[in-house]
Amino acid sequence: MTGAAAGVRTQEQVRQRNLSEVLRCVHKEGAVSRAVLSRRMGLNRSTIMDLTGELIAAGLVREGVPTGQGRAGRPSIVVMPEQEKVYGLAFDVAVDRLLAARVGLGGRVLDRRAAVRTRAGVDLEDVVGVLAGFGRELVAGADGLCVGVGASYCGLIKRADGTVRYGPHLGWEDQAFGPELAAGLGLGLPVEVGNEAHLGAVAEHVRGAGRDVDNLIYLHGDVGVGGGIIVGGKLLDGDAGYGCELGHMLVNPFDGRPCLCGSRGCLEAEVGEEALLDYAGRANGLIGRDGIRAVVALAAAGDTRARDALDRVGDWLGVGVVNLINLFNPALVVFGGMLSDVYPAAAARVRARIDAHVLPVSRERVRLAVTALGEDTTLAGAAELAFAGLLDDPLHTLAALR
Amino acid sequence: MTGAAAGVRTQEQVRQRNLSEVLRCVHKEGAVSRAVLSRRMGLNRSTIMDLTGELIAAGLVREGVPTGQGRAGRPSIVVMPEQEKVYGLAFDVAVDRLLAARVGLGGRVLDRRAAVRTRAGVDLEDVVGVLAGFGRELVAGADGLCVGVGASYCGLIKRADGTVRYGPHLGWEDQAFGPELAAGLGLGLPVEVGNEAHLGAVAEHVRGAGRDVDNLIYLHGDVGVGGGIIVGGKLLDGDAGYGCELGHMLVNPFDGRPCLCGSRGCLEAEVGEEALLDYAGRANGLIGRDGIRAVVALAAAGDTRARDALDRVGDWLGVGVVNLINLFNPALVVFGGMLSDVYPAAAARVRARIDAHVLPVSRERVRLAVTALGEDTTLAGAAELAFAGLLDDPLHTLAALR
Repeated sequence: MTGAAAGVRTQEQVRQRNLSEVLRCVHKEGAVSRAVLSRRMGLNRSTIMDLTGELIAAGLVREGVPTGQGRAGRPSIVVMPEQEKVYGLAFDVAVDRLLAARVGLGGRVLDRRAAVRTRAGVDLEDVVGVLAGFGRELVAGADGLCVGVGASYCGLIKRADGTVRYGPHLGWEDQAFGPELAAGLGLGLPVEVGNEAHLGAVAEHVRGAGRDVDNLIYLHGDVGVGGGIIVGGKLLDGDAGYGCELGHMLVNPFDGRPCLCGSRGCLEAEVGEEALLDYAGRANGLIGRDGIRAVVALAAAGDTRARDALDRVGDWLGVGVVNLINLFNPALVVFGGMLSDVYPAAAARVRARIDAHVLPVSRERVRLAVTALGEDTTLAGAAELAFAGLLDDPLHTLAALR
Repeated sequence: MTGAAAGVRTQEQVRQRNLSEVLRCVHKEGAVSRAVLSRRMGLNRSTIMDLTGELIAAGLVREGVPTGQGRAGRPSIVVMPEQEKVYGLAFDVAVDRLLAARVGLGGRVLDRRAAVRTRAGVDLEDVVGVLAGFGRELVAGADGLCVGVGASYCGLIKRADGTVRYGPHLGWEDQAFGPELAAGLGLGLPVEVGNEAHLGAVAEHVRGAGRDVDNLIYLHGDVGVGGGIIVGGKLLDGDAGYGCELGHMLVNPFDGRPCLCGSRGCLEAEVGEEALLDYAGRANGLIGRDGIRAVVALAAAGDTRARDALDRVGDWLGVGVVNLINLFNPALVVFGGMLSDVYPAAAARVRARIDAHVLPVSRERVRLAVTALGEDTTLAGAAELAFAGLLDDPLHTLAALR
């Protein structure tokens, strides 16, 4: 009976919810007229004016004329986020980089720090040390109010407390990443932690390739392959937050390459970085993302071994995508991380699998695309985590912060 | 911005929603005290009394003492559905049977009709003729009000109009099943049509093995294998209603058995009726469900070929279940249709695959079970479709019917 509690609302709760929706819309769209807000929310103009007035008084949004307008004709006033005054901290722990950013309400990155590091096992203390240092610098150099902190991590996360349950690529198991980073930052704010591919899916849905789509799948390639699935506008996180492990779908169960998870023939083992570089013969001795890009460039230049490697990976990627489309009937499949390099070079193979194996009714409308957020997809998702509390209940969250 | 419209509600809408939730709770639980309703919905006793009063006046529920109580101590009054006076019609079109039933509010089957038929291609007119005849008989013999009609069909359904887009097992493509059945019944009510496995998942969630679970997967075996997936309490139906095609997950992509869908190595091809009967050497010449049961009985009696057949099917079923658990992190996987015979006999193989390939975090809590609704799972799901309109907005639906 989960529906029951959700159905019941007092007038005060309705108002909170409306404020939340207005702010969410401004945050997502960047600049939106009151007329559009009125239409979207099905509320009359005077109610919208009350709501935006309250958000303006709270210092969360402002009204103005968007840049580039106001020359000819009557300028149309829009509502915009106070992106310089209200910001979140976003962190991204990937296998080959550590990122930190100050992101304004509305999603613009205002300032950032990055550390590239070796792939060797790195421990919690080191990672937290680097990130907390970045975070303190970013806050010290800024005006405005930090409303939340979000972090993306390349592993399985326990929702409730921000613990990394399983992060094989850094060799982490049951590490208190969220609490430790919160302590290191010393802002008195909790750190919300999410799986990188889950957050990537959220970012694509809010401000990337899937803005207008409520059913999408995001496939994120790194050393591993992760995924995030948006179903009816919401992230599928499963019973305990460990859903969407697309990388551990068995595509080659009895004959596959060994996977870091201990299994064999997982999608990650067949299409991840190691598989592609192995097949391509470790061209030029490059590893990591540079190695992947070198293989793609070689194939484009006519190198047969590189072409074969991409075809092989494309076939298995195609099997994975076929299964995902048959299971989820998505409108869009988005490739990010290193898969945004691999997919365009292997698209013909992936599409051939789809044509051969996807049910026609699900094949009719599905689109495939690379991320619209470049290398910042997971960071943008971490920023969404940072803003989640404010967007859910703007005034109470603000009152608690001040 | 799907969230926006959902967030906005007038007082009248809040009241409608509360009536809907009370009726839904009574429909699901069968008999529930006002105290429990009050606790579940977070509303005070007098508000609950108003709401139940309105539903009593409308003839949808009544108050009384549940059977088996009232001997010792003070009897506790419960709210119960008016199951004899308010009913839905449910139909089930499977490969080997046609069912029709009158189902009371609360989910009890009050009366039913069944036709067993051959597996040969059967056309729309024949099926509609039989079912409409059953339906008219059931309505003629009943008092009370028919509040809706739902039908389960073994194929892919276009949500908007109840068309069968793709039903390879009966050889149907783009057949106007819903509208034709509605015309044949002549009740002036539309027929809501759903995919059998989607409806099976809903039924398991509302009143079967997954009553207390909001993330579950239902696998339905017939000649084909279908699935329904409940994510966060809601059916995953994808962008156009064609999601959950678990049967067409590629488990054996490059070496698999041909599938009716034109592909190869689909889960359905590897674990469906034909696969098991082929492997078992068509024991005793039996086909269909009887054949499946014969194989299970032979294996239990020590027959090696039957045992091997079940092991082989169990291995592939295990691969499918592994992928589903890694993708969805469900709390429960339910097996129905012929898989409720096969799973218990192949459970060791399925569990071995899970132990070998599912990520530990997702393996921790997942349970596997057979349907709690026996052969009526899909029919029960069709009944839920029949009641959907009434449960969503009780008073307006009733007003439109009377």
